[in-house]
Amino acid sequence: MNPKEFLPHIAYDSVIFGFSGDKLKILIMEYHNTRLFALPGGFVRTNEALNDAVRRGLKERTGLDDIFLEQFYTFGDMARFKPEVMKTIMQGLNDKVPDNHWLLDRFISVAYYALIDYKQVVPRPDAISDSCTWYDVDNLPVLILDHQKIVDKALQTLRQNLDHKLTNLLPEKFTMKELQSVYEAILGEKLRRTTFQRKLLASDLLVRHEKLYNGGAHKAPFLYSFARSEDLEG
Amino acid sequence: MNPKEFLPHIAYDSVIFGFSGDKLKILIMEYHNTRLFALPGGFVRTNEALNDAVRRGLKERTGLDDIFLEQFYTFGDMARFKPEVMKTIMQGLNDKVPDNHWLLDRFISVAYYALIDYKQVVPRPDAISDSCTWYDVDNLPVLILDHQKIVDKALQTLRQNLDHKLTNLLPEKFTMKELQSVYEAILGEKLRRTTFQRKLLASDLLVRHEKLYNGGAHKAPFLYSFARSEDLEG
Repeated sequence: MNPKEFLPHIAYDSVIFGFSGDKLKILIMEYHNTRLFALPGGFVRTNEALNDAVRRGLKERTGLDDIFLEQFYTFGDMARFKPEVMKTIMQGLNDKVPDNHWLLDRFISVAYYALIDYKQVVPRPDAISDSCTWYDVDNLPVLILDHQKIVDKALQTLRQNLDHKLTNLLPEKFTMKELQSVYEAILGEKLRRTTFQRKLLASDLLVRHEKLYNGGAHKAPFLYSFARSEDLEG
Repeated sequence: MNPKEFLPHIAYDSVIFGFSGDKLKILIMEYHNTRLFALPGGFVRTNEALNDAVRRGLKERTGLDDIFLEQFYTFGDMARFKPEVMKTIMQGLNDKVPDNHWLLDRFISVAYYALIDYKQVVPRPDAISDSCTWYDVDNLPVLILDHQKIVDKALQTLRQNLDHKLTNLLPEKFTMKELQSVYEAILGEKLRRTTFQRKLLASDLLVRHEKLYNGGAHKAPFLYSFARSEDLEG
């Protein structure tokens, strides 16, 4: 990479959450010949918008396209400045690494996350990675630098914003049971059905529709959809 | 400023919301001899954590200390790259401005906000500013670069996170009426009392305490406090 092609000191990292009805997963890359595991990340071209750089970079590194990425935090502690890690990665690629290489400088990283159905996509590692694979969120490999901290903050943000993110993971109309299973996978804990239903119904987030008839009609559950903002006026 | 003292290409801007029972305000600075209005902002030292830089910079520029700042978004569009604006600011200070000055480069800005009681603090402009003053949020001067966009995004974030931010602005125990007046000031609209009370009480956010006795006891309102997370278990 040409040092004049990219902004120095600024990187991005992306936490791609994958969910498909069971455990919540995260996409992790392994750098070539290093056994170093990391979030997919990259750099910003000098004439490129930050958000465009992240979309472009994620596609180049993982093959994933048309992912809705949301920025959630920018990491700028001194503790994340460990030039020896980048040096190891570059040496794993057989690159010569002069001590004043721009990639060995301090980087502030803008972090993004996305939540997708992992069965709908096939991630592919780029030329500098040995793998690009889904890991269960509670069973990640040891990650470089502050990437575990970035994952933790992404997870915290995802949980806080849960109600707004679920539309990616559910059909337009869904049953209360389907909704609860998504909540449970993301929160990582079982919820009591009665409490869950009471809170959700009190929240004004849902609109109730017809029942889901599937043969024996007398136990058919109601279908719900998320209320749009114009439904929320009180 | 010595170019080696600060990271190039990285800035911060802070949106300081002030509230004291009436209109929501924002702290705006006017650069010396320019009539250019801007959010208080600055740069990150090469060996300084990003969050520390913002606290230090805000104190140096406005005199405000011990402010709880929260990061909310990093702005990195190309449209914010307008070196002529920075040139005007530097010329207003009688600085000589070589065309390759590092301050004329492209900057990505990490934005922070805070919500404080503006009657508790006295902001003071720094040496490069003619003023550092509270403006009503609905009556701001024209701001440089994308600073109005930064304000809009801060306001959007503040409104989304309203429930978690109010503890700065209310006594530990408060009446429903006090709570509603804070919501109204921040949302910028009047709310219907009955709807407001019903939603807040259904939200599990509040814990009800004793009544506030203030003489004539029969109309004494209840006092509330915010539920801590351990109160929220279902």
